[in-house]
Amino acid sequence: MDIVRRVFPMRETCRQVRGTQRRIGFVPTMGALHDGHLELVRRVRELSDTVVVSVFVNPTQFGPNEDLERYPQDLARDADLLIRERVDYLFAPERDDMYPVGPATEVEVSELSTRLEGASRPGHFRGVATVVLKLFEIVRPHVAAFGQKDAQQVAVVRRMVRDLMLDVEILVVPTVRDADGVALSSRNAYLSSDERRSARALPRALDAVREAYASGMRDPEALRRTGRAVLEAEPLLRIDYFEIVDRDDFTPAVEASDRDLAVTAVYAGATRLLDNAPLGG
Amino acid sequence: MDIVRRVFPMRETCRQVRGTQRRIGFVPTMGALHDGHLELVRRVRELSDTVVVSVFVNPTQFGPNEDLERYPQDLARDADLLIRERVDYLFAPERDDMYPVGPATEVEVSELSTRLEGASRPGHFRGVATVVLKLFEIVRPHVAAFGQKDAQQVAVVRRMVRDLMLDVEILVVPTVRDADGVALSSRNAYLSSDERRSARALPRALDAVREAYASGMRDPEALRRTGRAVLEAEPLLRIDYFEIVDRDDFTPAVEASDRDLAVTAVYAGATRLLDNAPLGG
Repeated sequence: MDIVRRVFPMRETCRQVRGTQRRIGFVPTMGALHDGHLELVRRVRELSDTVVVSVFVNPTQFGPNEDLERYPQDLARDADLLIRERVDYLFAPERDDMYPVGPATEVEVSELSTRLEGASRPGHFRGVATVVLKLFEIVRPHVAAFGQKDAQQVAVVRRMVRDLMLDVEILVVPTVRDADGVALSSRNAYLSSDERRSARALPRALDAVREAYASGMRDPEALRRTGRAVLEAEPLLRIDYFEIVDRDDFTPAVEASDRDLAVTAVYAGATRLLDNAPLGG
Repeated sequence: MDIVRRVFPMRETCRQVRGTQRRIGFVPTMGALHDGHLELVRRVRELSDTVVVSVFVNPTQFGPNEDLERYPQDLARDADLLIRERVDYLFAPERDDMYPVGPATEVEVSELSTRLEGASRPGHFRGVATVVLKLFEIVRPHVAAFGQKDAQQVAVVRRMVRDLMLDVEILVVPTVRDADGVALSSRNAYLSSDERRSARALPRALDAVREAYASGMRDPEALRRTGRAVLEAEPLLRIDYFEIVDRDDFTPAVEASDRDLAVTAVYAGATRLLDNAPLGG
């Protein structure tokens, strides 16, 4: 595996790979890799000849009071994990190389970007969309993989790809969970053992909503109450939101249907945890 | 020359052309072609193997009270002109194909986009940047040509290319002028013969400023007065702006230098005319 630290050599390498008619698969990450990321790598490999993984803690998607400076980073460990997955290129650019002159040009995926996560984290999805576009322009992948765990990010990226007519296939990979049902996340490393135990309430709340839906409950407010009740029983958790929304535009459901997601964000101490599940299927 | 009316066949064709290692040159236009556009075609041809010209009157770069609905359109005439220039593909997409679901995702080139033209035409450069990016994604040119006549558009496109790391070379082609010095523009067709005569004051004003600069005048305010005086002598013209600005970020000059432009926008009746000239060289 080659580790590439600069934008221009990465672009040049990818250009050469494309020139030999090999399909490029791409997984953008912020590092601190876990099995959820590695599952993205495995799935994208099945659809491509050359696999590029980026590790870049993108400053523009963090708010001023968020965890940018303490976000876990261990490039050597990430590299080891990716070598075992037979990744071809690890792209780990420096901040100054990705943003040489500050983020002057930005990509705004309107409406969708302002709801739920976007409301809690103003500017977050603008930062995500902009950096994903930049990474796509450098790597020019045929296929790029994203985890369903970040459901609204998936919706934002898909919408950007459609609206800007980007020539890339977006592969969405189901959430990977620990044995106790908790979705894998780099931020789980922040949790105390008590908080970690409380975090099991997220998948339990989503399961309770799915069961209620399967039993015929269609009123979004009743479904929300069902999910929130499970979370509210945990004293270490504080709910940011628990909603039933359309999976594409994240508008609140009027009557719940198979195309909706239950989505939630919860604080355990200072740590923000996300999870989601489709109501149908 | 093939005329392509749909996004997906155009993308597929360009993908095949790139696969044969041919360089793609691209000229985005709004049609109503004149010799200024054809000069872009000729110059881009020198740098590429296959030339694609788009004709698309982009609705998102027009303001609500602007000339979108009366903007001159004559695709048959444009096609004839492009055939004579041995253009390979004329891409003339339908509005519904370029904006199937409305302009949800937009590219915002901040600051620069809000000055001068951006102040007079709010949202204009957001529309320009977004459609240029979309066209780039469809055509994926190696080189794309823009006219210096629209100097701030050039600056916006260059900034977008740099910030978003787009893999395309931007070729800027000097303004083509009629024998009387008036810059060629599709909007010149709107002018009455009296207005057309008055329009000669634009190049005269720019020449006066260049001469004053060459004689040592460095005070931007004095240079502005010099240019405005020429325009104000024409009763049929109304000045929107006449400024001395940095050619890259369009900030007002503090002390005029070779890297500055004199830029002006003037109304002749309802018609808005642009022109600019570098102070140095």
